[in-house]
Amino acid sequence: MNYRMILFIMGWVLSFEAALMLPSCLVGVIYQEKAGFALALVMLLCLLVGIPTIIKKPKNTAIYAREGFVAVAFSWIILSIFGALPFVISGAIPSYIDALFETVSGFTTTGSSILSDVEALPKCLLFWRSFTHWIGGMGVLVFLMAVLPLAGGTNMYMMKAESPGPVVGKLVPKVKSTAVLLYGMYVGMSILQLVFLLLGRMPLFDALTTMFGTAGTGGFGIKNDSIGGYSPYLQIVITVFMILFGVNFNFYYLILKKKMKLAVQLTEVRAYFLIIAAAIIMITVNISGMFPDVFTALRHAAFQVGSIITTTGFATTDFDLWPSFSKTILVLLMFIGACAGSTGGGIKVSRIVMLLKTMRKELDVIAHPHNVRKLKVDGRVVEHSVLRSTNVFLVSYMVIFGFSLLLISIDNFDFTTNFTAVAATMNNIGPGLSLVGPTQNFGTFSDFSKLVLTFDMLAGRLELFPLLLLFAKNTWVK
Amino acid sequence: MNYRMILFIMGWVLSFEAALMLPSCLVGVIYQEKAGFALALVMLLCLLVGIPTIIKKPKNTAIYAREGFVAVAFSWIILSIFGALPFVISGAIPSYIDALFETVSGFTTTGSSILSDVEALPKCLLFWRSFTHWIGGMGVLVFLMAVLPLAGGTNMYMMKAESPGPVVGKLVPKVKSTAVLLYGMYVGMSILQLVFLLLGRMPLFDALTTMFGTAGTGGFGIKNDSIGGYSPYLQIVITVFMILFGVNFNFYYLILKKKMKLAVQLTEVRAYFLIIAAAIIMITVNISGMFPDVFTALRHAAFQVGSIITTTGFATTDFDLWPSFSKTILVLLMFIGACAGSTGGGIKVSRIVMLLKTMRKELDVIAHPHNVRKLKVDGRVVEHSVLRSTNVFLVSYMVIFGFSLLLISIDNFDFTTNFTAVAATMNNIGPGLSLVGPTQNFGTFSDFSKLVLTFDMLAGRLELFPLLLLFAKNTWVK
Repeated sequence: MNYRMILFIMGWVLSFEAALMLPSCLVGVIYQEKAGFALALVMLLCLLVGIPTIIKKPKNTAIYAREGFVAVAFSWIILSIFGALPFVISGAIPSYIDALFETVSGFTTTGSSILSDVEALPKCLLFWRSFTHWIGGMGVLVFLMAVLPLAGGTNMYMMKAESPGPVVGKLVPKVKSTAVLLYGMYVGMSILQLVFLLLGRMPLFDALTTMFGTAGTGGFGIKNDSIGGYSPYLQIVITVFMILFGVNFNFYYLILKKKMKLAVQLTEVRAYFLIIAAAIIMITVNISGMFPDVFTALRHAAFQVGSIITTTGFATTDFDLWPSFSKTILVLLMFIGACAGSTGGGIKVSRIVMLLKTMRKELDVIAHPHNVRKLKVDGRVVEHSVLRSTNVFLVSYMVIFGFSLLLISIDNFDFTTNFTAVAATMNNIGPGLSLVGPTQNFGTFSDFSKLVLTFDMLAGRLELFPLLLLFAKNTWVK
Repeated sequence: MNYRMILFIMGWVLSFEAALMLPSCLVGVIYQEKAGFALALVMLLCLLVGIPTIIKKPKNTAIYAREGFVAVAFSWIILSIFGALPFVISGAIPSYIDALFETVSGFTTTGSSILSDVEALPKCLLFWRSFTHWIGGMGVLVFLMAVLPLAGGTNMYMMKAESPGPVVGKLVPKVKSTAVLLYGMYVGMSILQLVFLLLGRMPLFDALTTMFGTAGTGGFGIKNDSIGGYSPYLQIVITVFMILFGVNFNFYYLILKKKMKLAVQLTEVRAYFLIIAAAIIMITVNISGMFPDVFTALRHAAFQVGSIITTTGFATTDFDLWPSFSKTILVLLMFIGACAGSTGGGIKVSRIVMLLKTMRKELDVIAHPHNVRKLKVDGRVVEHSVLRSTNVFLVSYMVIFGFSLLLISIDNFDFTTNFTAVAATMNNIGPGLSLVGPTQNFGTFSDFSKLVLTFDMLAGRLELFPLLLLFAKNTWVK
């Protein structure tokens, strides 16, 4: 294990975090808030700890899969540990565990909150809270790779560990160029959404924070009623952009390259839009009686479906009051999640597609044992290692889910609360049902449960293996 | 597809069902109940339909995997369709869908009931209801294979389709001898339990029906409070035998062969007892405050753990009133289920063990890519096809689970009710939580939901693939 190199990366991550806090600090200056000092203080702390480790580049910069995964896991943990400090130092969130939960929820683009009154937070901290979504959406290390000459070709392993989906989303042969491209498209779409929001007369501060939450598929709002108070136009803009940020970025890359035909043929993207359409129709029919007209029902259905499948977690209405059928659809969408290679979380549509195909293949094997073909997606044979890893993902997912459910049940809340709390955090969504419904928050859980759910958010965002690897004996051997 | 041969097997299954109804009919004679006529009438009907198809043996008796799976699926459906008739004809359960639910619940050893007052049923129908558990536990076709010279070596495929677990439980090279051996041990253990129950002064009728429910890990009781009214001695006897019937019968075979050392080294059996012990300890601690002393708590904890993990579903107390932690343990046990090659349902301990091992292996692959060994259980390398099929099982399981959850949510009950109703039926357990808790019943669901849950019970008992195969186009092609 190349410990020196991992330390070096941590140093960069911390220095980078200091830079990330700068915009929030400026917001503090603009609104003349005392909490701005807390941000400045932590910026200084990050630099003090970070700089010494990056002054000297390690002699051996080679990192392999193991180091890549461990580095990614540690990066996210360190980012959160320091990112939580401004909330505590400013006194806005007195308990450190609460602040950590909130910060991890931000970086992992979950959007679950322990705050009952979001509007009481100083603007600079609200900004920081939402900005963590934007950073976490595309990935911290992907960004570092885009801007830094870190360690040549072996960056691949870090990208593999941080990027969501069963196969790595390398668009072009070089990792660095891929990272630049991804962030380029990300920034472009973010600006586009900002323009649309401002056109709807949303105040700049609201527009920026809402955009951060949408682009990262995070879901932190700056209002206690999330998006419910904004105009139907703004709600529709957010709906559309949530769904767009949940699309595999490969799709946009193909469009940029003017390969329209290839783009619209992507199985995952097709399945994604098909699921969204089906869910919206079913829910609209189911809830139509609750709203004055079918268009209002459709708007709310589309918003909530977009919000949940992309794992954003914004809400325009309290869907915990919806009929059981609609709620069940939302719970199922929680698990499906967005496309691989997007900013969304969950199991990912591509994994679902692949697993459904294995199911069909197995039935074929039984029916016609001598006539079995290889599993293909988008015309390409799926490699055995990808299939194996996808299966193991599902198993690990269920094991972590089961353990988390058991551990937080010690708090003695009802089954629906516990089940959807784990589902909402592990899939990086935000709200669940019952006591963690869209009008409630996670503040009622014990500190122990908050830590369990914090782990789940990290595990979900990093797709389990980087975090699990920290607990495997063999990782540290040799 | 050898349709003629499938029809031939169906004929035997129906004739066999007529024979199976004879004991219940005799009970009707003994207690002089009118419902006995209903049983006699259906016996006649079974013979009238069944005999004509078995008079002439088909020329081509060869059946392959496809035919085996389809024959098993059809057998269980036909058994249930006819088995439900006595309830309707006698007027005991007026609705045919209710009667079908109850009968499928019996044959699949689920034990979920739509009856709110079990004690109102005539004795002969109570006997038939419990007897279906005993037959379903070891398998109908396994029995046919034991007694009939059906079709030589190709029986293997039917055994594969009907026996629970990822690998087929062939104890000896010949399928017929295996079937005889299995039923031998099954009958032996059943008699042993009967003796222990009678020693505790349980009335013969109660002892017989309770034994049927325990041996088949079914769970239909003949009292409205299930096992709660019986003495602590009887409860302990039932606890022990539930757990024993959940053990892989391979274990008993090894003991019969005096291979004690091999028997106690079986990974699955060890894991099974370990899980049971851990669950009992945790629940006892959690509920100790609810009972006068720790021994009472231990007794109830052990009973409920044994009942749920073996997927029996008897109850001595209303565990829906237990704290959330204990209930969550029980819900997790629902999914784990009993050992493969036992009469219990669920995902099966051996699958869980295998899947956990793949998880560990994947982490090793990331940490040390060049140093990976094959996956072994009990010292033997697990074949790729078994691993693949286990993975697909998990996927299919989740897909059916999700769809069922969605479909029954149309009835608009709460999430806990819906989730545990599907879990309790698909894992062939019986009671769930909330509205389907141990003191409640499934009668509140709509007919549509009852059919969905009926499908789940069959899918769970036959381990998904035989039933799924009926819906795959390729099964019927060529």
